[in-house]
Amino acid sequence: MKTPDYSGLGFEITHCAAEGKARVGRLKTPHGTIETPNYIFCGTKGAIKALSPQQMREAGTGIILGNTYHLMIQPGADLIERMGGLHEFNRWDGPMMTDSGGFQVFSMGHGSCADEIKGRNKGKSERKSLLKITEEGVAFRSYRDGRKMLLTPEGSMGLQRQIGADLVYQFDECTPYHVTKDYTAKSMERSMRWGDRCLAQFEKTQTGRQGVYGIIQGGVYPDLRKISADYTADRPFFGTAIGGCLGGSDEEMIATVEACVPSLHPDRPVHFLGIGRIRDVFMFVRRGIDTFDCVMPTRIARHGMALMKGHPGERINLINTQYKEDGEPLDPALDIPASRDFSKAYIHHLFKAQEILGMQILAQHNVAVINRLMREVREAIKTDTLDALEKEWLA
Amino acid sequence: MKTPDYSGLGFEITHCAAEGKARVGRLKTPHGTIETPNYIFCGTKGAIKALSPQQMREAGTGIILGNTYHLMIQPGADLIERMGGLHEFNRWDGPMMTDSGGFQVFSMGHGSCADEIKGRNKGKSERKSLLKITEEGVAFRSYRDGRKMLLTPEGSMGLQRQIGADLVYQFDECTPYHVTKDYTAKSMERSMRWGDRCLAQFEKTQTGRQGVYGIIQGGVYPDLRKISADYTADRPFFGTAIGGCLGGSDEEMIATVEACVPSLHPDRPVHFLGIGRIRDVFMFVRRGIDTFDCVMPTRIARHGMALMKGHPGERINLINTQYKEDGEPLDPALDIPASRDFSKAYIHHLFKAQEILGMQILAQHNVAVINRLMREVREAIKTDTLDALEKEWLA
Repeated sequence: MKTPDYSGLGFEITHCAAEGKARVGRLKTPHGTIETPNYIFCGTKGAIKALSPQQMREAGTGIILGNTYHLMIQPGADLIERMGGLHEFNRWDGPMMTDSGGFQVFSMGHGSCADEIKGRNKGKSERKSLLKITEEGVAFRSYRDGRKMLLTPEGSMGLQRQIGADLVYQFDECTPYHVTKDYTAKSMERSMRWGDRCLAQFEKTQTGRQGVYGIIQGGVYPDLRKISADYTADRPFFGTAIGGCLGGSDEEMIATVEACVPSLHPDRPVHFLGIGRIRDVFMFVRRGIDTFDCVMPTRIARHGMALMKGHPGERINLINTQYKEDGEPLDPALDIPASRDFSKAYIHHLFKAQEILGMQILAQHNVAVINRLMREVREAIKTDTLDALEKEWLA
Repeated sequence: MKTPDYSGLGFEITHCAAEGKARVGRLKTPHGTIETPNYIFCGTKGAIKALSPQQMREAGTGIILGNTYHLMIQPGADLIERMGGLHEFNRWDGPMMTDSGGFQVFSMGHGSCADEIKGRNKGKSERKSLLKITEEGVAFRSYRDGRKMLLTPEGSMGLQRQIGADLVYQFDECTPYHVTKDYTAKSMERSMRWGDRCLAQFEKTQTGRQGVYGIIQGGVYPDLRKISADYTADRPFFGTAIGGCLGGSDEEMIATVEACVPSLHPDRPVHFLGIGRIRDVFMFVRRGIDTFDCVMPTRIARHGMALMKGHPGERINLINTQYKEDGEPLDPALDIPASRDFSKAYIHHLFKAQEILGMQILAQHNVAVINRLMREVREAIKTDTLDALEKEWLA
C-alpha cells in the first residue's frame, strides 16, 4: 500500500529514557510543532468548554481536538469547510486533531466502555440512537433531531478533510466491553478492513497537510490486540492510536496496552484515545505513549474540582465547606490569574452563587496544571527522573 | 450636618458642553480614577457574569459594582471583610461601587418597576420575600434559605463598610410604580430620614476611603422629585443618585429626571441607578448624568445578543439563522479577540451547541462596546459633537 503524502507533518524522537519506553519527541504539523509527551484538550463541539483560544494559550496549551460526530451534526462539516476549516472557524491556530466520529456513534449507541463497566445507562432510550452496523458503515440517529444518518470509512475521511484538522483518525468500531471474544474479533477485523478503506480514501484527496492515525482495537484480549497492532504497523498510517475498551482496572488497562506495545511502529507517534488522569500519564508514558486526550480537565472543572500537584487524589472539590474561608490560591507557581490570584474561598463562593466564572477559572487552572505536568514529564524523561517526578505529583 | 471624611476621593468637572448639561469629569477613588461619563458594570454576586477581572480590563473597563443584598446572603459581608474586602476577594483592583441592598429587597419583594410596568411576576409566590417595612428598616426572607433578615440604614452602611467598595449608597425604599402619590410621598420622606441615619452611621465608622451617595426618590411625581433632590443637595453626601421608578416611557423618564436636575448639587457626581441602554446614555449625559449602571450588557450576552454601534436597535441576536454563515466579526475596530476575531457564524454555532464560550465572547464584546461608547461620548462632549456621535451610534 502506497504511503500517502504526509509532507507537511513529521515526528522525530529526540530522547529515549534509559529504562522503559518513555520518550521525548517533536510532532510537526502544518499549524506548528508540539513536544511530546503532550496532552490534547477536548474541544468537542469546536470549542473548549468555558475557555477561549487565548485562555488556552495563556494556560500553556499546544494542541486541541474536535469531535467529528458532534461537528457533523452541528454546525455540519460543509459549513465548517465553507468557513475555511475548523482552525479558521474557532480561531485555534495551533495543531489540532479530530477523531473519526466512530467513538461517539458507538458510545452514544451502546454506552461507553466506562458506562458499561460502571453499569450506567443500561437500557436507556437514548441508547437507541445506534441503528445498524454493516460492512458498509454504521447507521444512527442524530442526537439533535432524530434524523437518520450514515457514517462510513469514506464518509468519515471526507468529513475530517472538510474540518481540516492536522491529525485525523481512521473510522473504527469502538467495541463494547460486554460482548464475546468472538464478537470482539469480528469487530476488530471489520475495523481493519475499514482502516484500509480509510487509507484508500485519504490518499485520493490528500493535501499533504493531514496525517492519519490507525487505531488498535481488540478489547481486553491480548492476542487480538497484537493482531490489530501488527495491522496498524503494517499499513502506511502516520500515527498509531490505542482505542477501544481497555478494561475496568489499572491492571487490565496496563495489560491491554502492553499487548500492543511490542508491535507499535517504532517511528510513529502513539496516541492513547480518551485516557488522561495524572496517574495514567505516568503509567503510560513509560509504555511509549506520546499523546493523551481526555475531557477530564475541563469536565471536572464544571463540577467545582481543581487538579492539584502533590495531591494523592489528583484533585480537590472547591464546593466543600473546608474551602469557604481558604484565602490561598490554587497554585501560585502557575503564572495565570486563575491559579495564582483567586483564593479558594472566592472560587468556593462562585460555585455557591452559581457564577459561570467559577467554571471558567477552574477550567483554565486544570488545563494549566496538565500542561505543567506534561512539561515536567518531558523534562523528567530527558533527565531520567520520572520516578521522582511521579512521587512529587501523586505523593 | 458635618461633612464626612471623603479625603481619599474627589470629583472634578473638567469640561462642560456648550449646550445642555453634559460634562466631562474625573472621579477619584482610593482604587484609581475614572473619567466621566462612565458606565459601571454589574458584578451582582461579586463577579461579572462570565468575565474575569482580566477580561474586563481587556475590554476597557474602569469601574464595576457589587450588590449588597446578594453579597450579604452569599458569601456574607463578614466573610468578605475577613477575606480583606471585596476588592481583595474578587481581584478587581479598580474603583468599585455597592448599592445599599434596598433595591433588591424591594424589587424581589414587590417586583421591579419594569416588572410592574410590563405586568410580569404579578402575585408570584417568590414575591412573598418582603415581609414588613417599618421606620426601623425592612424585614425580608433570604432567597437562599428562607431565613428572616432585617435591613436597616445603619445595617446597610455597616455591610457596605465591610464589603469595602469605594462608592456606597444610602439605604432607601425603592417605591413601587402602582402605588398612590400619597404612599410615594410617605415612602420618600422615610427614605430621607433613612438617609440622615445613613450619614450619621457612616460618619461614626468612616475611613476616608468611601464616598456615600444620597438617592433621589419621589416616583413619577415632579414635585416629589424636587423635594427629594433638594434634600440630597442639602446633606453632606459625596454623590447624588437618581433612583426609584421613573415611569414606563422615554418621555416619562426624561420628565422625572428633569424634575431632579435643577436641584442636583452642582459639584457632586451624579449616578443614574439601573439605567443604561445606549440611547439612555445619550439622553441623560445631556441632562448631567455622570455614571450609569445596568445589567443589560452582560445579561443580553447570555441570551445571544451583541451590542452594535450604528444599529438602530442597538443590538443583534446571533441566534438568528441569518448569522449562520456570516463570516464577519462583530466589530473589527475593537481590539479584543471577542469582537475582532470570531465570526458571527462561529458565535451562532456556539449558542446552537450550547457552549458557555458563546456567552463569554458576547459578554466581553458588549462590555467593550459600552466602554467604547463612553470613551466616544466623553470625547464628543469635549468637542461639542454629541449630536453627530448619537447619529453614528443610533443611525
